[in-house]
Amino acid sequence: MANDCVLLAAVSLLSAIQQAHFAKQVGNARVKYKVIPPSVTGSPDFERIFRAQQNTIEFYPLFLVVLWTSGLFFNQEITSIFGLVYLFSRYMYFIGYADSTKGRIPGFKIGLAILTILISLSVAGITNCMIDKYFDFNIAKKISKLFL
Amino acid sequence: MANDCVLLAAVSLLSAIQQAHFAKQVGNARVKYKVIPPSVTGSPDFERIFRAQQNTIEFYPLFLVVLWTSGLFFNQEITSIFGLVYLFSRYMYFIGYADSTKGRIPGFKIGLAILTILISLSVAGITNCMIDKYFDFNIAKKISKLFL
Amino acid sequence: MANDCVLLAAVSLLSAIQQAHFAKQVGNARVKYKVIPPSVTGSPDFERIFRAQQNTIEFYPLFLVVLWTSGLFFNQEITSIFGLVYLFSRYMYFIGYADSTKGRIPGFKIGLAILTILISLSVAGITNCMIDKYFDFNIAKKISKLFL
Repeated sequence: MANDCVLLAAVSLLSAIQQAHFAKQVGNARVKYKVIPPSVTGSPDFERIFRAQQNTIEFYPLFLVVLWTSGLFFNQEITSIFGLVYLFSRYMYFIGYADSTKGRIPGFKIGLAILTILISLSVAGITNCMIDKYFDFNIAKKISKLFL
Repeated sequence: MANDCVLLAAVSLLSAIQQAHFAKQVGNARVKYKVIPPSVTGSPDFERIFRAQQNTIEFYPLFLVVLWTSGLFFNQEITSIFGLVYLFSRYMYFIGYADSTKGRIPGFKIGLAILTILISLSVAGITNCMIDKYFDFNIAKKISKLFL
Repeated sequence: MANDCVLLAAVSLLSAIQQAHFAKQVGNARVKYKVIPPSVTGSPDFERIFRAQQNTIEFYPLFLVVLWTSGLFFNQEITSIFGLVYLFSRYMYFIGYADSTKGRIPGFKIGLAILTILISLSVAGITNCMIDKYFDFNIAKKISKLFL
């Protein structure tokens, strides 16, 4: 089993390291802008960095779910590439948001596009697998047969 | 492997789409109640919608864990039905909370009941699997033999 | 498959129960310090407990990812022990933070150390699996052969 999902696992691990990196940035920003725990407000610069991390956390389980459903039920290689682009888009978002409120937008839009694609691939893959399992009819195989 | 967990994957995918839907509602509420990022306060109407989403996010990884442990170690079909009810309860919670603080309670209680059930099924399934693996004794099989 | 990951599933289930426990503590603190939803501020005592839970939630998907990548690609038994220590460290963190802001530090540091270890084991396991798959060369097997 491990062999069939090693790319998904690698992307997931990279995403976990990215989460740790963002958490570290918030910790650094606490020191820099003197925002003492448990407070999370006080400096607009800190608040932007904090919200950038919070928003990334909010989307993180959603990302993991669609990464794995798309990777296991559609295609692992294609999904992993989209996964890497998502991580890059979140990096853009974080850097941009830390700089200014408007700066968050480009990274956010790319991230949303990737999530939309991964959701679509997951829907296709899971629907095909369910039809195959419960109605014994595999659309993907039928289509590929047309071209052989 | 994909065949054995397609229902769990389908419920997970639905839950991811629900998370995206709630995030969109918060975005809409930001515009409607003029709460400019990175701020998350200012309008009680916005704050209720925001807290409804935040609370759903807080419970989301917990839900995913017990959905999969219950589904893989107890029973996939039963678990998936409970999973769907949980998603419905969270929808009730979100709509209710957006309307009033008290409105969050019915959906929340149903959600808690489902999580309690899924935790119990997971404990049963994992305990049986561990006893089977480490003591070579399968309770579920023994019980089912009694009735055959 | 279920047999190969039952310990990881057991640790994940325990972690889910811990999340539910922390959520309950925040609910209790809301009543005790009279912080009415959707508000999350007002009493420093409540704010510390709330931030303790929030921080644990922030790290939770990250923990789950490295628990499973380390457990599936490195070693399930070793990973599960580290996983249990992590849960204990988070308990220390929560209790400590509820008591005082400084009290969060020991548990937090142990938790960070465990996450660092699990990330390292995951990197080792996944790298070995990828080299094995794509270059047909298994480092772990070569090393173990040297000692046989």
